[in-house]
Amino acid sequence: MTYCVGLLVRDGLVMIADTRTNAGIDNIAVFRKLKIVSEKGRRVLAIATSGNLSVSQSVLSLLAEGVENPETGELETLDSQPTMFKAAQLVGRAVREVWRVDGPGLEQMTARFDVQLLFGGQVAGGRLRLFMIYAAGNFIEVTPDTPYFQIGEHKYGKPILDRAVTYDTDLYDALKIGLISMDSTMRSNLGVGPPIDILVLRKDALEPELDYRIEPSEPYFLDLRERWSKALRSAHMEIPRPPYGSNVPGDI
Amino acid sequence: MTYCVGLLVRDGLVMIADTRTNAGIDNIAVFRKLKIVSEKGRRVLAIATSGNLSVSQSVLSLLAEGVENPETGELETLDSQPTMFKAAQLVGRAVREVWRVDGPGLEQMTARFDVQLLFGGQVAGGRLRLFMIYAAGNFIEVTPDTPYFQIGEHKYGKPILDRAVTYDTDLYDALKIGLISMDSTMRSNLGVGPPIDILVLRKDALEPELDYRIEPSEPYFLDLRERWSKALRSAHMEIPRPPYGSNVPGDI
Repeated sequence: MTYCVGLLVRDGLVMIADTRTNAGIDNIAVFRKLKIVSEKGRRVLAIATSGNLSVSQSVLSLLAEGVENPETGELETLDSQPTMFKAAQLVGRAVREVWRVDGPGLEQMTARFDVQLLFGGQVAGGRLRLFMIYAAGNFIEVTPDTPYFQIGEHKYGKPILDRAVTYDTDLYDALKIGLISMDSTMRSNLGVGPPIDILVLRKDALEPELDYRIEPSEPYFLDLRERWSKALRSAHMEIPRPPYGSNVPGDI
Repeated sequence: MTYCVGLLVRDGLVMIADTRTNAGIDNIAVFRKLKIVSEKGRRVLAIATSGNLSVSQSVLSLLAEGVENPETGELETLDSQPTMFKAAQLVGRAVREVWRVDGPGLEQMTARFDVQLLFGGQVAGGRLRLFMIYAAGNFIEVTPDTPYFQIGEHKYGKPILDRAVTYDTDLYDALKIGLISMDSTMRSNLGVGPPIDILVLRKDALEPELDYRIEPSEPYFLDLRERWSKALRSAHMEIPRPPYGSNVPGDI
């Protein structure tokens, strides 16, 4: 399992990915799922992946080696894409190419061709953007109405995002809320686990402001987990008890 | 979709069920999923159901008409079961009987024989118990370590339960936390919706203390939803921003 979340707010982009992979509950390992490609002043591109690890790794390898442009026959990499939209299309082409090679074999073994990606970043001259790319190579883009995307085990960590994140949320508050969302997910699904890779990319900076791995023992993250649990526990205490039944005062 | 939660705390049992059914997003209806059978001073039994509505309704109809006891040939109903364990076994037998009749036809149409039930209550002379019954007719029972079960769309509403409910939680706090869990689920999954049926059964009372339907417009529930959203939004503000990146003070 995997959990990745990307948040695009007014001031910038946050991407967060766990690192746990499992082939069954008895075969757990640590793999980085957040890949960052950057050239200072020109572009910062980040890909977070979920799904079948062989598929997502092949997509990344193919993007590094180059995906053939069907019209020109040339090999293209992320470095050569002039816009985020063109770069997202290239990632989609890479996904479809891996499907062409590995998809039928996977299906023959009744395994699903399962991959989903978050693709965010900025190319000089364009705006900061965040896409979610599907197994068919198609993609959607974040808009201010719902300024985040999730891939993998998305349900446990969604309620906090639904309520606390807007496009105007401060960049480091977005990071914090993303980490709370990650914590909620890790608490309820053992298939999602630390360390946690994070990227903070400020709008128009064209270099990562933060590219960091949070280790499980890190005091800030332990403190966040403890405070959030406590906040959840105490939050419901502020709410009056239901005015039904025998032991409750009538006024609420 | 469906969401039902049952909480068994020291003082009693809470069961909560939504009422939305959908055959596709364009075919939504209201069906009661919480069935209560009680005879004052003798027994209170409650069944909450999720899964294929035709299956769960057939299980309930069969339990009302009587399930044949394979050893005696007699028809047995919930009214005649001397203990909660025997009653849970009877529900399991009803599930298997519906499987025998409808299972093969469903599978031929590539529909799953999909049903899961919460079964809670007390029979005079025995203790208050809560079971989760699977499509195979087998079941598990709540213990004080994890004093709740969920069926249906369980993920969105699990984080609050994981953190706020223990066996020693007050009975009406358990109801409140269950309603918060229901609210979290309804907010994130349109397939789960109001009105909401609730049962509160105090230990050894042998009659429902509360058997109630919360309508969507009810002031208490609207207030709970609003307060919980506000509490979630403000809870994260109490947590310091991450000590990473450029715009954050070094001390946390």
